Amino acid sequence: MAVKELFKSQVKVVNIGLESFKNALDEAGAPAVQVQWKPPADVSPQAMRVIAAKKAQIEKANKKAMDIILRGMPRVIGLARAIDVIPGMKKNLFLHSGPPITWARMCGPMRGAMMGGLIYEGMAKTPAEAEKYAKSGKLKFAPCHEHCAVGPMAGVVTPSMPVWIVENKTFGNKAYCTLNEGLGKVLRYGAYGPDVIERLRWMENVLYPVLQRAVKQLGFIDLKNLIAQALHMGDEVHNRNRAGTSLLYRLLAPAIIKSTANASDAAAVLEFIHSNDHFFLNLSMPVCKCVLDAARGIKNSSVCTVMARNGTDFGVQISATGGKWYVGEALVPDALYFPGFSKADAARDIGDSAITETGGLGGFAIAASPAIVQFVGGVSSDALRYTSTMYEITAAENNVYQIPSMNFRGTPTGIDVVKVVEKNILPFIDTGVAHKEPGVGQVGAGVLNAPMDPFKKAYEGLAKHLASSRS
Amino acid sequence: MAVKELFKSQVKVVNIGLESFKNALDEAGAPAVQVQWKPPADVSPQAMRVIAAKKAQIEKANKKAMDIILRGMPRVIGLARAIDVIPGMKKNLFLHSGPPITWARMCGPMRGAMMGGLIYEGMAKTPAEAEKYAKSGKLKFAPCHEHCAVGPMAGVVTPSMPVWIVENKTFGNKAYCTLNEGLGKVLRYGAYGPDVIERLRWMENVLYPVLQRAVKQLGFIDLKNLIAQALHMGDEVHNRNRAGTSLLYRLLAPAIIKSTANASDAAAVLEFIHSNDHFFLNLSMPVCKCVLDAARGIKNSSVCTVMARNGTDFGVQISATGGKWYVGEALVPDALYFPGFSKADAARDIGDSAITETGGLGGFAIAASPAIVQFVGGVSSDALRYTSTMYEITAAENNVYQIPSMNFRGTPTGIDVVKVVEKNILPFIDTGVAHKEPGVGQVGAGVLNAPMDPFKKAYEGLAKHLASSRS
Repeated sequence: MAVKELFKSQVKVVNIGLESFKNALDEAGAPAVQVQWKPPADVSPQAMRVIAAKKAQIEKANKKAMDIILRGMPRVIGLARAIDVIPGMKKNLFLHSGPPITWARMCGPMRGAMMGGLIYEGMAKTPAEAEKYAKSGKLKFAPCHEHCAVGPMAGVVTPSMPVWIVENKTFGNKAYCTLNEGLGKVLRYGAYGPDVIERLRWMENVLYPVLQRAVKQLGFIDLKNLIAQALHMGDEVHNRNRAGTSLLYRLLAPAIIKSTANASDAAAVLEFIHSNDHFFLNLSMPVCKCVLDAARGIKNSSVCTVMARNGTDFGVQISATGGKWYVGEALVPDALYFPGFSKADAARDIGDSAITETGGLGGFAIAASPAIVQFVGGVSSDALRYTSTMYEITAAENNVYQIPSMNFRGTPTGIDVVKVVEKNILPFIDTGVAHKEPGVGQVGAGVLNAPMDPFKKAYEGLAKHLASSRS
Repeated sequence: MAVKELFKSQVKVVNIGLESFKNALDEAGAPAVQVQWKPPADVSPQAMRVIAAKKAQIEKANKKAMDIILRGMPRVIGLARAIDVIPGMKKNLFLHSGPPITWARMCGPMRGAMMGGLIYEGMAKTPAEAEKYAKSGKLKFAPCHEHCAVGPMAGVVTPSMPVWIVENKTFGNKAYCTLNEGLGKVLRYGAYGPDVIERLRWMENVLYPVLQRAVKQLGFIDLKNLIAQALHMGDEVHNRNRAGTSLLYRLLAPAIIKSTANASDAAAVLEFIHSNDHFFLNLSMPVCKCVLDAARGIKNSSVCTVMARNGTDFGVQISATGGKWYVGEALVPDALYFPGFSKADAARDIGDSAITETGGLGGFAIAASPAIVQFVGGVSSDALRYTSTMYEITAAENNVYQIPSMNFRGTPTGIDVVKVVEKNILPFIDTGVAHKEPGVGQVGAGVLNAPMDPFKKAYEGLAKHLASSRS
């Protein structure tokens, strides 16, 4: 078409990138189509060159990783005390969420949970004594993720705590998680008052043996099937677990009756689970952990195996580089705050629960859970948009976990660090919000994007790994 | 604009009615907008004139009816034997679904259920004996709806059967419904084999006393709240009751443990409920029944208080004319059939369960339940479309029951017979499908529109009522 012709015909615009340009055209009445595009995040040109050159190898490796992830068969096989089953667990070792951190850099709620843990273990009598002990260097700290475990919020696991044992039947590896305490003033949100400690003791002395016998009675519980059903019932199994908790409860109740002679213990355990719609979270997390752990260390794979926050740092691991952490600053979530609290009270993003998003659930599956916006804010169409966007940065669609309202499309699964950086689209995460001071507890729930920094570092780390390895 | 000018400018079409005209324009590339419109159903011009003249009175009466319906507070207050609580229940009276019917006109599954009922009551020993007895005239038949009761499918209620007692706390009236037997070969689908009778006896001897004690222990169960939650969890509480059943189960389990000393009975009851995701249907039905019954007999109101089918006829009642039935032929549903069965095996539409649609649930709330299409056929976007259309023929939006994916819009509630006829849009109903022969049981589940005939008759009946009453 000659230039002269072009100017006679009606001009139509394809706008790439900033939507504000299209808005201006819309206002002027000019026909325009919006194409979503952003420049990549700023990583080194060398890294981009290496990764561009190795795209085929990365794709192949990611295919292998996703095959392993999608073939995972997570199931509860029992409960035990942390010290008896968690690899490397020791009497003077407390685990925590997120990447490694020292007492000096720990946020308020994580310090609070450590102090509560010391009182619970009988290693300190008062919060002041506990703080002194924690500072002294006698107590060791390590990430849950480095011990096949995951923990919500502060994620503190102490040696005596009972934990769920979740096995990935396909590959034989296991993951561990404590039992969920409920909402509000609880250890994982940094509270450590006498009621918190008393509840932990009841969980150890009543809840744990009752559940242990019930699971023994059942043999195992197929969690993949249970989560698939829960997604059809409005859960995303991170911030909404009402269906997962209900379905688990239905399985457990008859087994509890058959295996616990003491009716008042049996009733108390069922009432405890019934009172806490988040009870299932501490199973959806080790489900994703054991499924993703099986895909660690696949040469050239850019698939994310860990996203975790300790309330100070946000850490990422990718398959190719195994246990290496890529770390950036954790952000403060946008949230619906409980009455009397605001963003000024909030700790930075905290907890291993982003393992659900890493496994194609949580924020990635939020379109299955329109009712969740009442808990985290927003309108129900936001939920559809968030999930739709996550397909842009994932390596596969889930074969079992579905979004009914998207005509049963599989959830976006397997975060590809290369796509995150090159498309400049960040993973979307549902989360609870802790008070920034120790001893207070939960102040809200909300949503946020992961920070870009750890993903840029992971991208650079992948490039280094690719450059150094023979392919 | 001069005619000359008109032909120079681009012609744009507003197409009203048949969408096929617009499709042709679309193919030709002509801009066209579709407006949904159909001519009214063919009712008498006199009736249309009367109703047009009394629109203001009808509106006012419907407002009153909807206020009563939306203020209903349904709750389980106990269980009892049918003969001890259902008004007018007698030893030689069996209730059934839908409008009144004789043995001669009864469909196969209803006859089968009556025969099973006679064997269960010890009034006959064999199916042949039961058939003879049923034909003899010694056994009386009456619609559940005429005895403050509702029954799914054949809806047979015999004197010894245990029933839920659901009270509308706001207005004090009650509704009754039997306990759900499960799917497949069950009495309500017309099966009457020894396994069916044995299950009914177990329900009477074990399930009933256990549930009776548990409800006594709880005092009451707030069903309005429970259904509101279930809609947030993917139920429409007619053909999908997995969430409702789960939430009810969570409430019942601790109460059962506390009130039933025999652990094996307690476990058996919980396993029975756990095995049947439709268990809650027999509560969602009397919920709607007691809520709608409170709005009977409001002068001038065109709000539908009953839609019910007996497998032969489809009956409608409207508020203005109280207990008067408007009846037409029941249709055969489109369905997903179980392996080995087809539409040729299906009975006509049957059951009082359309009381859920009459109460703004079921097919009217199907957009809350995208996963249901796996049970009834179709794609998930159909569910949104069905619910959206039902707003066209309803008098109000529910104040408590919401569709999360439609940004928590209240479900379309209160079918207005005037709108049904004048817009020519039929109520949409989810349903189970029974085999047309007695003794077989369920063969599928599906969806269908109500027939227009009873609504036209109700419209004419309303016109007559309006013409004869002073306003």
